Amino acid sequence: MDSIKDFSLGIIGLGTVGTATIKLLEEQLVNITKKSGKNIIIKAISARDISKPRGININKYDWEESPIKLTEREDIDAIVELIGGSDGLAKELAYSAIENNKYFITANKALIAKHGYDLNFRISNKTVQIYYEAAVAGAIPVINGIKDGLVANNILEIYGILNGTCNYILSDMTNNGKTFEESLAKAQELGFAEADPSFDIEGIDSAQKLVILGLLAFGIEPDLNKVYVEGITSISAEDIKYTNRLGYKIKLLCIAKLVENKLDFRVHPVLCTSESITAGIGGALNAIFIKGDYSKEITFIGEGAGAEPTASSVVSDIINAARSSKSVNNINLLNSNYEYINIMSRKGKYYLRFIVKDVSGVLASITSILNEHSISLDSVIQDGNKGEDTQFIIILTHLCDELDIINAIKKIDNLETIINKSYLIRVENI
Amino acid sequence: MDSIKDFSLGIIGLGTVGTATIKLLEEQLVNITKKSGKNIIIKAISARDISKPRGININKYDWEESPIKLTEREDIDAIVELIGGSDGLAKELAYSAIENNKYFITANKALIAKHGYDLNFRISNKTVQIYYEAAVAGAIPVINGIKDGLVANNILEIYGILNGTCNYILSDMTNNGKTFEESLAKAQELGFAEADPSFDIEGIDSAQKLVILGLLAFGIEPDLNKVYVEGITSISAEDIKYTNRLGYKIKLLCIAKLVENKLDFRVHPVLCTSESITAGIGGALNAIFIKGDYSKEITFIGEGAGAEPTASSVVSDIINAARSSKSVNNINLLNSNYEYINIMSRKGKYYLRFIVKDVSGVLASITSILNEHSISLDSVIQDGNKGEDTQFIIILTHLCDELDIINAIKKIDNLETIINKSYLIRVENI
Repeated sequence: MDSIKDFSLGIIGLGTVGTATIKLLEEQLVNITKKSGKNIIIKAISARDISKPRGININKYDWEESPIKLTEREDIDAIVELIGGSDGLAKELAYSAIENNKYFITANKALIAKHGYDLNFRISNKTVQIYYEAAVAGAIPVINGIKDGLVANNILEIYGILNGTCNYILSDMTNNGKTFEESLAKAQELGFAEADPSFDIEGIDSAQKLVILGLLAFGIEPDLNKVYVEGITSISAEDIKYTNRLGYKIKLLCIAKLVENKLDFRVHPVLCTSESITAGIGGALNAIFIKGDYSKEITFIGEGAGAEPTASSVVSDIINAARSSKSVNNINLLNSNYEYINIMSRKGKYYLRFIVKDVSGVLASITSILNEHSISLDSVIQDGNKGEDTQFIIILTHLCDELDIINAIKKIDNLETIINKSYLIRVENI
Repeated sequence: MDSIKDFSLGIIGLGTVGTATIKLLEEQLVNITKKSGKNIIIKAISARDISKPRGININKYDWEESPIKLTEREDIDAIVELIGGSDGLAKELAYSAIENNKYFITANKALIAKHGYDLNFRISNKTVQIYYEAAVAGAIPVINGIKDGLVANNILEIYGILNGTCNYILSDMTNNGKTFEESLAKAQELGFAEADPSFDIEGIDSAQKLVILGLLAFGIEPDLNKVYVEGITSISAEDIKYTNRLGYKIKLLCIAKLVENKLDFRVHPVLCTSESITAGIGGALNAIFIKGDYSKEITFIGEGAGAEPTASSVVSDIINAARSSKSVNNINLLNSNYEYINIMSRKGKYYLRFIVKDVSGVLASITSILNEHSISLDSVIQDGNKGEDTQFIIILTHLCDELDIINAIKKIDNLETIINKSYLIRVENI
C-alpha cells in the first residue's frame, strides 16, 4: 500500500458539538483512517476558554489563541468551525479559510443561510470545498442526499419539519393535552428549548435551514427577509383538540418550491392529515421531504439536534473532505433573480378558530361574512353551551384565496361578538 | 474555465430502466454537465433486440452487438449494466469492466448481493469505482447515505421495508379487508407484481437487498443462504384483522444487525405498533431505518421501484462517477468470518394464530401447552361462536424464546382440535 497522506484539522469552538466531534474522531481513529484513506489529525484547537471542563483531554493538541491564525497555517488542511453566528468571527474564518485554500467545515446554519451562496461562489476557482451537513437537521444526511444521491433530479419541491423544539412542543400538546406555555416549560426543563426560545418558536431557526435547502435545490441566493415566517406561539390547546377531531395534526412546516419561476418559500403551522407520514414525525424529530422529477418523493427522518447527532454530520463531512481531492462543486449557482411569491396569493384550505361571546346569531354572522368573501365551508364545530360566557367556533374551509380569508377575518374581528383576535392555520396536502 | 473533459458511457440493457436512463440523460444534458463537470456522452449502447420499440431514438448512438466488447473499448469510461441476473453476462461485464479500468454502474441487486464483496475487493487496487445505488430501494439514496452522509458512524442496526410488492399487498389487505390472493391479483393487475410473484412474496428479493446493505454497513461478505427468509404467503385476512385490533400492523421486514460478533440477518413478517413510522409506510413504498452510534436512527423513505425512480439513482451514480477521480472505496471490507445467528435463538414477543374446532376446552388445552413451555400471555382473542364449525384463537405472548414457541406449536398442532397448521408472526419493537 502507498504511504497514507495526512489531513490536518484546525478545530475552532469547543462547546458540546466541538467536544463530541473530538471524541468521535478519537474513538474511531482506525476506522476513520480506513474510510477516508488519510491520516486525519487534529493539529490545533481554539476556543474562548482553555480551562473550561469538557470531559476530554485537550492538552495533547496545539492550543491557538487566535482562531484566524489557524486559517493561515501551512500545516492545516481544513478548518472546522463550531462557534456559530452569521457574521463576526465565523464569517471571517470562512472567508479566510477559502482564501487560504483550506477546506471549510461548519455546523453554522446562520452563516450558511446568509453567506452560503457567496461562499459557494468563491470556491468555484479554488481547489477546496465547503461542507455544512450539520447546519441542517443534525445527523440527517440531507445535504449529501441533494448534492450526490439525488443529483440527477430537478428538485420540484422541498418541505420539512426542521425545528425539534417546535415539534417537541406540538407533539407534547397533542399527546398530553397541554397548553403551549406548559409544553414550552417542559421542553425547557428537558433541554429541548433554550431559556430564550424565541428564535425557535418564532420560526427563525426553521427559516434559516429552509433557505439553505433552497440554495442547494435551486441554486438561488436566498433572502431570509423575503420568506414568509410565522411561528407556533398562537396555537392553543383548543386548536390541537379541534384539529385532531377533524382528522389532522398541526406541524410547523418549512416549504420551498419553484412556481412558474417564482420562489414560494414559507414557514408556518399547517394541518396535515393524521395518517400522513408528516403527522407521524413525533417528539423532537426532524423530517425532510424532497420531490424530484425522476425520484418522486424521498423522505429523510432523524434527530435534528444534539451533540452526538451533529458530530455525526461534522465528522462525516471531515471524512468526505479528506477523501476528495477537488471534485466539482455540486450546486448549480444561478444568477437570475427569482421573485418570491407573496403569501397573500396562496390558494388552499384553512382552519379558522374564533372565540366568541355565547349569544345567539354569532355563527350566522360569521358564516355570512365568509360567504360574502366566496369562502365555502367543509366542516363547522360549535360545541354545545356548557354555561361559559365564551365559546369556540371552528371552521374548516374548502379551497379559497388567502386574500379573501384575510379580508373576511378582518371584518369578522370587528364584530362585537368576537372576543379574541381570530386565528388561521393553513391546510397543506402533505 | 478549463476545457471540460468527456466521460463516455457504454449502456447495456434497454428495458424500461435503460430507456428511462437515456431519456433522463438526454433531457438534462446541460444540468448534468454543470453538476458533473464533465461532458457525459452516451458513446455506445447494446441490448438483445435493436428493433424493439422503446419511445426513444437510439439510432444516434453506436450500436454494439457484443456487450462485452464495450468493456474493452478505449473510448469508454464507464459501463452502465441494466440487464440483471446474478451471473452470466452481467457478472462477466462487471469483472471485465473493472479489469479494463472502467467505472461500473449497475441496478442489479442479484449481482451485487452475490458478488458485491468480491467486486469491491477487486477495485481496491484500481483507479475506478463501482456504483449500485439503484440496486437497493429504487430512488432512495441509502447507499450514498451509508457510504458518505453517515460515514462517521459505526452502524449498529439496519432494518427496512425493501419490497414494494409485499408492502402493496399487505397495505391493500389492511386497508380494504382483502385476502392475500385478492390483493396479489390486484397488485398484478396494477403492475406492482410480476406474473410469477414468488421471488417477491417469498422474501428472496428482500433478502438480496438486505445482504447488500449488510455488506455496506458491516463490510462482511454476505451469504444469502444463511439468512433466515420467510415471505408473506401465510398471512390471512384474519391475521390482518386481529393484529389491527391488537394495535399492530403487519410488515415484511428485513433486519441486519451485529450481535456480539454474530450476524443477525433475517427477513420475515413482523408486527409493529400502529403508531410507528414503520406502520405508516403504505402502498408500494420502501423504507430503510439505520441506527448509527452517533447519528441515532435515520430513516429514508421513497419509491422502491419503477423506471423513473430507478433511473434517478442510475444517473446520480453516473454523475458521481464522472465527478470522482478515484476517491477511496468507502467500504471497510473485513476478512473475519462472522457467524450467523440462528432464528431459533430469537427472544421476543409473538403473535400466534390457531384455527380450531369449535368445541369446549380448546383454549384451555392450547394455553396449558404454552404454559408448560414457559410462555406467558399478553392478550387472547376468541370471538364468540357465530354458528361456524371453526374458530380463530389469537394470542399475543409476552417475551419468550422462539425455541419454546416452536416446540409448543408443534405439540399444539398435534391436538385433535386443531384444524390448520398454526402460524406465528414475530413482534419487533420498531
